[in-house]
Amino acid sequence: MRTVVPFDPRNPNSRLAPVLDADQRREFAAAMLADVLDAVRGAGGDPAVVATAPLDVDVGAPVSVDDRSLSAAVQSEVDADLPVAVVMADLALATPESVGRLFDAGGDVALAPGTAGGTNALVVHEPDFSVDYHGASFRDHREAAKRAGLDVSVVDSFRLAVDVDDVADLVDVFVHADGRARDWLADAGFELVVRDGEPVVEPNA
Amino acid sequence: MRTVVPFDPRNPNSRLAPVLDADQRREFAAAMLADVLDAVRGAGGDPAVVATAPLDVDVGAPVSVDDRSLSAAVQSEVDADLPVAVVMADLALATPESVGRLFDAGGDVALAPGTAGGTNALVVHEPDFSVDYHGASFRDHREAAKRAGLDVSVVDSFRLAVDVDDVADLVDVFVHADGRARDWLADAGFELVVRDGEPVVEPNA
Repeated sequence: MRTVVPFDPRNPNSRLAPVLDADQRREFAAAMLADVLDAVRGAGGDPAVVATAPLDVDVGAPVSVDDRSLSAAVQSEVDADLPVAVVMADLALATPESVGRLFDAGGDVALAPGTAGGTNALVVHEPDFSVDYHGASFRDHREAAKRAGLDVSVVDSFRLAVDVDDVADLVDVFVHADGRARDWLADAGFELVVRDGEPVVEPNA
Repeated sequence: MRTVVPFDPRNPNSRLAPVLDADQRREFAAAMLADVLDAVRGAGGDPAVVATAPLDVDVGAPVSVDDRSLSAAVQSEVDADLPVAVVMADLALATPESVGRLFDAGGDVALAPGTAGGTNALVVHEPDFSVDYHGASFRDHREAAKRAGLDVSVVDSFRLAVDVDDVADLVDVFVHADGRARDWLADAGFELVVRDGEPVVEPNA
């Protein structure tokens, strides 16, 4: 399955700024991207990165640059050749098994929700589908499929639903992931601790 | 499957206080509980509520009162009779299908993660498992099973991973749920809108 992984290397994961500086966020984002590419390949997919700017590291997959909006860049890929999967670059919990469920989900369009109304991954098998990542994109993608007469399957996956974009999400990286992103956090001196009964990730003392 | 649904009617969903007053939070919590009980029954389960205080509404399922900690109350149920499932009361996105995946997951213990390190649902088939909902409970439950020589299966479900306990989670109720909790929010005058590209739930104008 041809799989597009959109990636913005310019100011990634800005909501992690309370705990990571700009250089660290770039490194952590690259680690998550590498984990996602591994999960895609592990599921039998053929990943390609579509980045908003050239990358200064070799990610082991072809990289093309498209500096338009996320929706415009992905729409070009959807219009180019089908089927195509689109998987976000910050799904640090993705595994070959969860990406495999996406690939095998069936339907004219398969959607994997993200928390808070988003769409973290999708597969388009039939033409005339319009992507729009602005707003409550899961609802909008469901409606776009309906307008185009396409049936939708939904992939009910926690691992695909967690996009790591704020500090609270780092807890799930420590609890559920074992790839480069988790190793990067541990090497950078972070650890999982419990404060007032709640798990948090913070720099170790 | 005997299914315990722990419920705290005293000050539920305190993190929803920015948008719902105490009476509204009690009503909304009761609506989510009813949705969870429906999902359990729809999956062929036999639900029973274990509440920290008597309920003043008929929830259509047996209710027992246990005012100890969540962990202590659930441990008593796990020690009483097996197999037993435990499903949190604020899983407003739960469906018969997702609960059915939990029931059918196999393993000596089945765990469904919640976001931020939690355990939102589990099934215990074999004795000697210890529950502990304090801290990073998913990690602790995995380790408790290992200590007891029990194998673990994990249910990778977005619908079971979203526990509705803060304002951002209401977006997913609007996007993904169609039960009493969503109806209650709509009847109370809330709607899903997009602000600066992000979906939010707020009182309609």
